[in-house]
Amino acid sequence: MHKTKIVLVVGSLLIAVALFGEESVGDLKVDPSIIPAELANAAVLLRERALIDNLSVDIVESLTTEVGPRRMGTEGDRRVIAWSQAKFRELGFDRVWTEEVALERGWIRGEATAEIVSPYPHNIVMTALGYSVGTEGDLVGEIVEFETFADLEAVPEGDSLEGKIAFVSYSMNDYVLKPGDGRMSAYGEGGKARGRGHVTAAKRGAAAIVIRSVGIDNNRYAHTGSGYGYVDGVKKIPAAAISPPDAVLIQNMLKRGGPVTVKMNFTSEITGPTKGANIIGEITGREDPGHYLVLGAHVDSWDEGTGALDDGAGVGSMMAAAAFIGQMETRPRRSVRVLLFAGEEIGFYGVNAYHEAHKDDLHEHLLGAEVDSGGGRVHTLISGVGEESLPYVREMYKLVAPLGIDWSDANDSKGSSDMSVLGRAGMPALSFMQNSNDYMKYHHTPNDTFDKIIPEDMRYLTAAYATMFFLAAEMDLDFRK
Amino acid sequence: MHKTKIVLVVGSLLIAVALFGEESVGDLKVDPSIIPAELANAAVLLRERALIDNLSVDIVESLTTEVGPRRMGTEGDRRVIAWSQAKFRELGFDRVWTEEVALERGWIRGEATAEIVSPYPHNIVMTALGYSVGTEGDLVGEIVEFETFADLEAVPEGDSLEGKIAFVSYSMNDYVLKPGDGRMSAYGEGGKARGRGHVTAAKRGAAAIVIRSVGIDNNRYAHTGSGYGYVDGVKKIPAAAISPPDAVLIQNMLKRGGPVTVKMNFTSEITGPTKGANIIGEITGREDPGHYLVLGAHVDSWDEGTGALDDGAGVGSMMAAAAFIGQMETRPRRSVRVLLFAGEEIGFYGVNAYHEAHKDDLHEHLLGAEVDSGGGRVHTLISGVGEESLPYVREMYKLVAPLGIDWSDANDSKGSSDMSVLGRAGMPALSFMQNSNDYMKYHHTPNDTFDKIIPEDMRYLTAAYATMFFLAAEMDLDFRK
Repeated sequence: MHKTKIVLVVGSLLIAVALFGEESVGDLKVDPSIIPAELANAAVLLRERALIDNLSVDIVESLTTEVGPRRMGTEGDRRVIAWSQAKFRELGFDRVWTEEVALERGWIRGEATAEIVSPYPHNIVMTALGYSVGTEGDLVGEIVEFETFADLEAVPEGDSLEGKIAFVSYSMNDYVLKPGDGRMSAYGEGGKARGRGHVTAAKRGAAAIVIRSVGIDNNRYAHTGSGYGYVDGVKKIPAAAISPPDAVLIQNMLKRGGPVTVKMNFTSEITGPTKGANIIGEITGREDPGHYLVLGAHVDSWDEGTGALDDGAGVGSMMAAAAFIGQMETRPRRSVRVLLFAGEEIGFYGVNAYHEAHKDDLHEHLLGAEVDSGGGRVHTLISGVGEESLPYVREMYKLVAPLGIDWSDANDSKGSSDMSVLGRAGMPALSFMQNSNDYMKYHHTPNDTFDKIIPEDMRYLTAAYATMFFLAAEMDLDFRK
Repeated sequence: MHKTKIVLVVGSLLIAVALFGEESVGDLKVDPSIIPAELANAAVLLRERALIDNLSVDIVESLTTEVGPRRMGTEGDRRVIAWSQAKFRELGFDRVWTEEVALERGWIRGEATAEIVSPYPHNIVMTALGYSVGTEGDLVGEIVEFETFADLEAVPEGDSLEGKIAFVSYSMNDYVLKPGDGRMSAYGEGGKARGRGHVTAAKRGAAAIVIRSVGIDNNRYAHTGSGYGYVDGVKKIPAAAISPPDAVLIQNMLKRGGPVTVKMNFTSEITGPTKGANIIGEITGREDPGHYLVLGAHVDSWDEGTGALDDGAGVGSMMAAAAFIGQMETRPRRSVRVLLFAGEEIGFYGVNAYHEAHKDDLHEHLLGAEVDSGGGRVHTLISGVGEESLPYVREMYKLVAPLGIDWSDANDSKGSSDMSVLGRAGMPALSFMQNSNDYMKYHHTPNDTFDKIIPEDMRYLTAAYATMFFLAAEMDLDFRK
């Protein structure tokens, strides 16, 4: 079946070479002393198959349609644990299991309404940040704007903001446009007020904190996200994000010089302990099953969209990449595992539990990667491996280069998102950098839905990981060295 | 002040010519026997001033910030009537007045919630179409999909849809992409189910009708809009639009083969008679004040956004264009009036009342135009004038051609939106066609907000109308001939 499909691929000069078993692959001149020709050709076949197979997209469709929102500790979370196991089995994984993850507190979002009371009445779009307390009825206060989190921090601790609503209007867009500043650093900057603003504002007496949503869109949705929890001895104040258009609206009113008063009401509530699970699927290695390559994504999502880009795209691409490896003629030499982590959005619960449980066998994890930047086009490969294995990885890269992927010499990847916890603990990693424009527009909003998935980009993403991890599973390398 | 600003304009070779009073304007070779050089040069000065003056944008900011949503018959409508008069006066219009418009019934939107009950539970985004009845509690029904309105019409009248929710899934996007089909015809096609679906579905027994939003975006907002009212003897069923992502979600569930059940609940209510007003501002002509050129826009908006593109952009560009004409050294020869119409969105109430009241003086309306396609870039001028005056209008066009505007030979414009009512009644008209991409993404949703305005495009739009209507007010033409 695969061969039939493959000959349909237009424009791939590599196919003929692959089918006839030449030692070099097109113009890429893969060194057969590093990657045997037969293996290189098998990798090309796998890659080209992944480019024409929509499995990764179909998985996201299934996840977002059949499960939908799935914040850890909610009913959707319980559904996704069942869905994941069933999907792994359907895709032919050899072993499927779950590992329990404890969550010390749950959270109910409740309903949120907000309005500008004066000088001009408007309903505005506001959403509670994760694990915020509720407002206990209407909370009415005058807005005090801070353009950055640093401006809020610069206010001396005390009661100068008493009864006020602190408003951090930092716009990720403005920051992104500055030359030399990357999108991820702009996201990190925005994350400061989102993560710590409620404590910082409370220490200055504020009744609540509201931030402009951390994202690059101008849709009238608020981007939720998680604070880092409350601090003992500091008043627990509500924390919320408002949509970019409503941030502009408030700023335009403030420019007129008079006070701007906002009323907010949300019924969020922190609840008791609960639990979830990491879900793991394995393609078991034919020769060395006790060593494995790990492909990660987080299975939870925020609760207002259906989590298509964050992180359905990761779930779909990683499950499909491993499934494609499992559909080769033989099992790979070593095992390939897909780790679907619980509770990334609310504080890396799944990966932290995994790390704790697998400290003693972390050495069996040979190489890891995670997709958690949406389904956008892959453009650069960054490795994070030992000096001895680096030339091998560089040679493996030649087999994904035809996907339009550049090579980075940095060799400092720890893996992204959850996987970086294991990467920092010593597990070798690699990352394909992606175009994250859409991700930064839609993630953490009701607008993160299946229609935002671009199938061709998903196939490229899946092909990239399938190819690299197939090679990594076949070759006898210790990526730590 | 204007000259100081004008010399700052980069790249306009016309400026020097305009300032020094040459008979030809750059390479455009305006025929001085048709447009005297002094007049052409004044038009260029006006045009270039409009390109660097942000007044049109400032007006939209003021309208959307200080008034916001303003559906006819609501509190926002009462606010915008006051705002409009104050703004006209602030801008130096010579006469400002209102003309009452009766509205035989009001409407309360109320709250709307909806969810897919089975096979997979999801909250979805639904909004009532204008003047729909409410659901009177939860309305639960199985979805029956029709890909087009014609497919629904093809079902024989009777009770075959009894208890069902008819779902017209027509996507304007798919239609737009077909070669030869224009965007406006795609919009018109979508408008059929929006306008008449509730009657057509009721005649087949349906309990409600739901349409995919008529728009080209994929944001999780429903686009509201107005039905054409209920018909005596046909059951009044609720009519609603759902967001494009939720339409896709339902379609993906339907593809699985089983029934899809939706629960909807909205508290909309049709109420008793009320009234509003058209607001009119005039720059009174210095020689022939009893004949006037009319620039139109509708002052009402839908009630979920702040009506920035629909039709704040029209209000801002037309008010600013006339204000700029009023700020020339002398008043124009004939009057220029800005007509801000009430109740366009809910059925052209303002312009119909205006037409009724001004039937006997319609001949005093020499030429009309309306902006109601957002604030996007102007690209083509279409006239709708008599054969004798056409060569003059063609010559006037040369003075807006440097804005990157093409000329259409069709000469069949009736003016757009409200103004087409007067155009069909015999008033000459012209229209600048615009890029309506953003309009079709955002209008009729909560997302139609000030941040969607692109200032440079608004300045081009304003410059185009200011230039043409300045010339039309100065030149002694009867555009009917």
